[in-house]
Amino acid sequence: MKLRLGMIGGGQGSFIGAVHRMAAALDGLYELTAGAFSSNLATSRTTGQELGLDAERVYDSYQLLLEQEAQRPASERVQVVSIVTPNHLHFAPAKMALELGFDVVLDKPMTFSLAEARELAAVVQATGRRLCLTHTYTGYPMLKEARHLVATGALGALRKVYVEYPQGWLSSFEEGNANNKQAAWRTDPARSGVAGAMGDIGTHAFNLAEYVSGLEVSQLCADIHTVVPGRQLDDDGAVLLQFAGGASGVLVATQVAAGEENNLRLRIYGEKGGLEWQQADANTLLVKWPDRPTEIRRTGAGYLCAAARHNSRIPPGHPEGYLEAFANLYRNFALTLRADLGGPPAPPEAADYPGIRDGLRGMAFIETVIASGRSAQKWTPLTV
Amino acid sequence: MKLRLGMIGGGQGSFIGAVHRMAAALDGLYELTAGAFSSNLATSRTTGQELGLDAERVYDSYQLLLEQEAQRPASERVQVVSIVTPNHLHFAPAKMALELGFDVVLDKPMTFSLAEARELAAVVQATGRRLCLTHTYTGYPMLKEARHLVATGALGALRKVYVEYPQGWLSSFEEGNANNKQAAWRTDPARSGVAGAMGDIGTHAFNLAEYVSGLEVSQLCADIHTVVPGRQLDDDGAVLLQFAGGASGVLVATQVAAGEENNLRLRIYGEKGGLEWQQADANTLLVKWPDRPTEIRRTGAGYLCAAARHNSRIPPGHPEGYLEAFANLYRNFALTLRADLGGPPAPPEAADYPGIRDGLRGMAFIETVIASGRSAQKWTPLTV
Amino acid sequence: MKLRLGMIGGGQGSFIGAVHRMAAALDGLYELTAGAFSSNLATSRTTGQELGLDAERVYDSYQLLLEQEAQRPASERVQVVSIVTPNHLHFAPAKMALELGFDVVLDKPMTFSLAEARELAAVVQATGRRLCLTHTYTGYPMLKEARHLVATGALGALRKVYVEYPQGWLSSFEEGNANNKQAAWRTDPARSGVAGAMGDIGTHAFNLAEYVSGLEVSQLCADIHTVVPGRQLDDDGAVLLQFAGGASGVLVATQVAAGEENNLRLRIYGEKGGLEWQQADANTLLVKWPDRPTEIRRTGAGYLCAAARHNSRIPPGHPEGYLEAFANLYRNFALTLRADLGGPPAPPEAADYPGIRDGLRGMAFIETVIASGRSAQKWTPLTV
Amino acid sequence: MKLRLGMIGGGQGSFIGAVHRMAAALDGLYELTAGAFSSNLATSRTTGQELGLDAERVYDSYQLLLEQEAQRPASERVQVVSIVTPNHLHFAPAKMALELGFDVVLDKPMTFSLAEARELAAVVQATGRRLCLTHTYTGYPMLKEARHLVATGALGALRKVYVEYPQGWLSSFEEGNANNKQAAWRTDPARSGVAGAMGDIGTHAFNLAEYVSGLEVSQLCADIHTVVPGRQLDDDGAVLLQFAGGASGVLVATQVAAGEENNLRLRIYGEKGGLEWQQADANTLLVKWPDRPTEIRRTGAGYLCAAARHNSRIPPGHPEGYLEAFANLYRNFALTLRADLGGPPAPPEAADYPGIRDGLRGMAFIETVIASGRSAQKWTPLTV
Repeated sequence: MKLRLGMIGGGQGSFIGAVHRMAAALDGLYELTAGAFSSNLATSRTTGQELGLDAERVYDSYQLLLEQEAQRPASERVQVVSIVTPNHLHFAPAKMALELGFDVVLDKPMTFSLAEARELAAVVQATGRRLCLTHTYTGYPMLKEARHLVATGALGALRKVYVEYPQGWLSSFEEGNANNKQAAWRTDPARSGVAGAMGDIGTHAFNLAEYVSGLEVSQLCADIHTVVPGRQLDDDGAVLLQFAGGASGVLVATQVAAGEENNLRLRIYGEKGGLEWQQADANTLLVKWPDRPTEIRRTGAGYLCAAARHNSRIPPGHPEGYLEAFANLYRNFALTLRADLGGPPAPPEAADYPGIRDGLRGMAFIETVIASGRSAQKWTPLTV
Repeated sequence: MKLRLGMIGGGQGSFIGAVHRMAAALDGLYELTAGAFSSNLATSRTTGQELGLDAERVYDSYQLLLEQEAQRPASERVQVVSIVTPNHLHFAPAKMALELGFDVVLDKPMTFSLAEARELAAVVQATGRRLCLTHTYTGYPMLKEARHLVATGALGALRKVYVEYPQGWLSSFEEGNANNKQAAWRTDPARSGVAGAMGDIGTHAFNLAEYVSGLEVSQLCADIHTVVPGRQLDDDGAVLLQFAGGASGVLVATQVAAGEENNLRLRIYGEKGGLEWQQADANTLLVKWPDRPTEIRRTGAGYLCAAARHNSRIPPGHPEGYLEAFANLYRNFALTLRADLGGPPAPPEAADYPGIRDGLRGMAFIETVIASGRSAQKWTPLTV
Repeated sequence: MKLRLGMIGGGQGSFIGAVHRMAAALDGLYELTAGAFSSNLATSRTTGQELGLDAERVYDSYQLLLEQEAQRPASERVQVVSIVTPNHLHFAPAKMALELGFDVVLDKPMTFSLAEARELAAVVQATGRRLCLTHTYTGYPMLKEARHLVATGALGALRKVYVEYPQGWLSSFEEGNANNKQAAWRTDPARSGVAGAMGDIGTHAFNLAEYVSGLEVSQLCADIHTVVPGRQLDDDGAVLLQFAGGASGVLVATQVAAGEENNLRLRIYGEKGGLEWQQADANTLLVKWPDRPTEIRRTGAGYLCAAARHNSRIPPGHPEGYLEAFANLYRNFALTLRADLGGPPAPPEAADYPGIRDGLRGMAFIETVIASGRSAQKWTPLTV
Repeated sequence: MKLRLGMIGGGQGSFIGAVHRMAAALDGLYELTAGAFSSNLATSRTTGQELGLDAERVYDSYQLLLEQEAQRPASERVQVVSIVTPNHLHFAPAKMALELGFDVVLDKPMTFSLAEARELAAVVQATGRRLCLTHTYTGYPMLKEARHLVATGALGALRKVYVEYPQGWLSSFEEGNANNKQAAWRTDPARSGVAGAMGDIGTHAFNLAEYVSGLEVSQLCADIHTVVPGRQLDDDGAVLLQFAGGASGVLVATQVAAGEENNLRLRIYGEKGGLEWQQADANTLLVKWPDRPTEIRRTGAGYLCAAARHNSRIPPGHPEGYLEAFANLYRNFALTLRADLGGPPAPPEAADYPGIRDGLRGMAFIETVIASGRSAQKWTPLTV
């Protein structure tokens, strides 16, 4: 039984729309059934056609998609809606979808503003529908292992959390480049919101740090820059972090590290040991000890925790990558929804996908980090 | 338009069947429509049900699948058949499928013996159908770049080719382990053929070496071992290689390198430079020069050749892995078949998938390497 | 002609004294001739004996060493004095040595306080003697290459400087451990000064960042912690950096990253590209570009700049390590002093050793970073 | 008390002479006292002068050095002689030195031929003097740990030994290059002997494999090439190895791997686990297990065996390199000789330096591998 999936956004030329489709397809748990892929109607239709959708399930707007799908018989209508539009177009379709009874997959950051995020949280609460927020990186199996090591106390009380996400693709002024749709909207305050790099990748780093550490940032001190002349939003920043309970850390997110790809990296140290993970070597988790050799833990190995094994598909030594991590979110969400719909019971690991709480904290991070960047005070509290 | 796919083998507990299904699903170019998943009928049916197939398209044998699908109307019947059974069950279903007009995806090694391989080659020739042999590793984008560098002469005339494939999973006697179906058939001469490790992974290494170098092995000298007591087939070997044209090399394939996962590695050196790739860091190709810095070429980068870019799905810095490499074979095969069927013309890169020639040479390698292992002569010629 | 070397500090059990001796010995440019190795006279004498010194050249105090050596005939007396005592015993012997006409090698941080540093700078100025401060890491050949790339504009105007120095050896309370002399004095404010980790390793990171970037930190914002209960000085910190001219960065120094050895790492990004170096792979410099492959530059290669080649001793592929980097400081200092003494002219690269300016800025860093750590203001200016 | 060292060979422009001097100097255990540095008398004298030797201790020939030093009073004369000439000039000075009562450090391969090696072994036996053969790589601390793991049975009975030593510096015809003294003599049968690459680096690889595994090669099958046109000796080879007791392996040594530096690498697998070491990351030993994470063992760590700790000078995280490994040979030899001379007793680890047995087996390897390369038989026995 496949879940019927509708997609909002993700027309030709979209990076993340294609990623969502591959992630949904990998495990055969979804069937892409309907779409409103673009506000450009020709683009939307061509996309739908290329994807082999029935023409009548390709809609001219997200409103039409949601309204008309909601009126179809239950056996036919879309069950989940993926929203993969730019940030300013997250809230309205997500709210409408939830209120019409659809479960929602939503790209991050969750909304345009923290106020919207709070409102969306209330909608989720009120409707009882489910929302999966695609903070992709938490889908990597070795980060499940990392989180497990922290949660079970293997590292002792945590002391330091370092997370960094250096990219180089905005090292020059790409906004005027017609071939770079990504650069155009991600640097545009009308579409991205109050933050650029901090919203685009800073939130990923923040989410990862809180997810793996199990800690919450209580206050932060940000140094925010717009490095490239003419750019309207931040493209670089470094943030000192204070966590509730006493740990501290550093978050770096930059899109002007010329020559860097996407080198997300997390290091956590506790009283007893430390761990290190980086996306460039995603199938490896280094676990470090003061008095014995560093361990190389690897995706697929039999000694890993249940969550790490659940989120892996193939034996050790066959690298699993970004699409598999992304697919883990879709898969866990599907396993959960299928159980909701009376299908087979979901394993406990399936409940572990990012959701509304991650979204709320992510939006709080964005607004706090930008405020801190403008403040002469060292510390600014982060509250949801 | 999705290609309708039938699968032979790949019931619950099969490793490679699930991999084929994910690889076929990733790009939305195939729809799994029919299957004969196991000679155990209950297993086959449960597998079909879990995969959401119509009960009537789940068959009790490959013969029934092929016969009955062939009789369905063209708009409905399976168009491609994936055969993912153990080696001794490759030839018969492949031959039957081809003769009934299906195109075929076939797991490697192609057949049980070189004689079967020659016969299958004749069937392909006679029927005009297409066959894709899943030598997965040639699907990695950075190996496309490697091949391009060699083919365009960037390294000069080749001198040395080193390929190695160390695994550790057969370091102890796993044959009696009921939970290890893989070990059972891969070490059984009745199902695997004349070779164990050399057939299972030696052929991959051999194929990779010939594919990237563009050279053909002309003779070889093999040292073949059955290391684990009680095992019936080789689990380890090392082979000196002589290539037509003067290059030489070494091939290592072992399944008793305790602690190794799947560390396929290729190094090639020519007059002007060298290159190095390993599966554990699959998105990196090292290109080495005598008088300037080694280059780290990376999946997704704009400077790569067309074939490398064609076989990649996401921007640089998002790791692509084994499933994506595998999916590249399915995708290129689908693009080719769609063009055959009057769909959009296939790009030139789509023609690059392993096929009957690779299968023939792989079977010749297997038989030659085993013969050489038994010979007191240093060199044994390899001929198809 | 070897330079006659006297050593103050470095008795049995000292880590850094032995390092200085090996560094001085490696190139055969110094002869250890005299010493006052410890305030414990027995230790001092045994050390001198083990090192094969004449008993009469082993002194009971640094004062005696300096006074009596100064009275020896020029052909016999010590020419250079290495001071390898804890921080609180740097200033007095250094000042006395300089005033008695000796050139000085001094361990870092330069003094106990910035005030002492300023006074010592005046003494150097007044006496015209030379001082080499052993900021070891700038001796690595690949950091010479890094500095050259920055200085010649290969990276364009700099934007970001990230430097980090995580260690784990003070993760638990080692102060009471009689076998850990290092821990005892490095965490004692009476011997180390106002800072612990920031003085011990933060200064190294700071020096490295300024040395390679050619930039000066103008203000900083520090988050300083004493993580281990009972410790008297900081053992951890993170610092936002602002450089004169507009670049910014982050400095991390911690001694409670359990499981880390000594993983000094530097990354610098400019408009055109970036570079990365870490001590754990000290013979490699990664040079990153937005539109072409990352380069792996390697110690000893013919394509390196003159300074990198000058500071390397053996062909590429033979790893050079910490002792060689340390020895580069001694070697460059010796080449300079020999020229002063009428020996062969020193090559231009020999002038590149850390000195009084590095020491002054290092002490300013220490005092500023501690002050900032106590401040509620975001930024604290750094001035010498 | 320093040992007085005389050197034969190693004049200006020699690579290995300078390395021997640095290795001898590092620990302050030797004092270079005399030399016959070159058959070119001007070169010899200038070298001596630069090294600060008394003019009367710089001799015009090795014969003069040995004869005249032997006649000096015991308190003054050279105690150890280092011979760092090309291979054809090893035997005669070594024999003469031993017979005159000197202990000898000798560069590898030990002699020009196996016959000479046997004769030298007899001289050592007859004179009772000591001989240290500089198979540098066995001096690395992590190879001591590797050997310890094997010897204590941690890996179980050994099954596979892979050793490789790829270099690229002879990828083109360098013999005519006046600036490449190394290339000139190392490719000249009159000076190198019967083998080129196999003698120069193949012996290192062979020695390393036997040293760490504790096994002896009983027979081998070699594929030997002279790749570069015009070259007189082999510059490339691959060898199948059979060890007494049942293990097998592969040795690769090549000097035409364009773009490679000096990437000596060793992997060993036993019943229970495996290990991997490479010179490019010399301070790391990977220890691999079938069912638990790979361990990263590191130079200087407290958990290492006594031999690994004995052969390391500084705390973990400070890289130690080639010169330190080389110096370990000199240091262990000095500790042994000092004890012979009535100095402090040598620790048991000091006895572990390569000697006459390594030299004999190395020469047997050279002659056997070349003979096998010319044979049509698969296997050629290796006997001393």
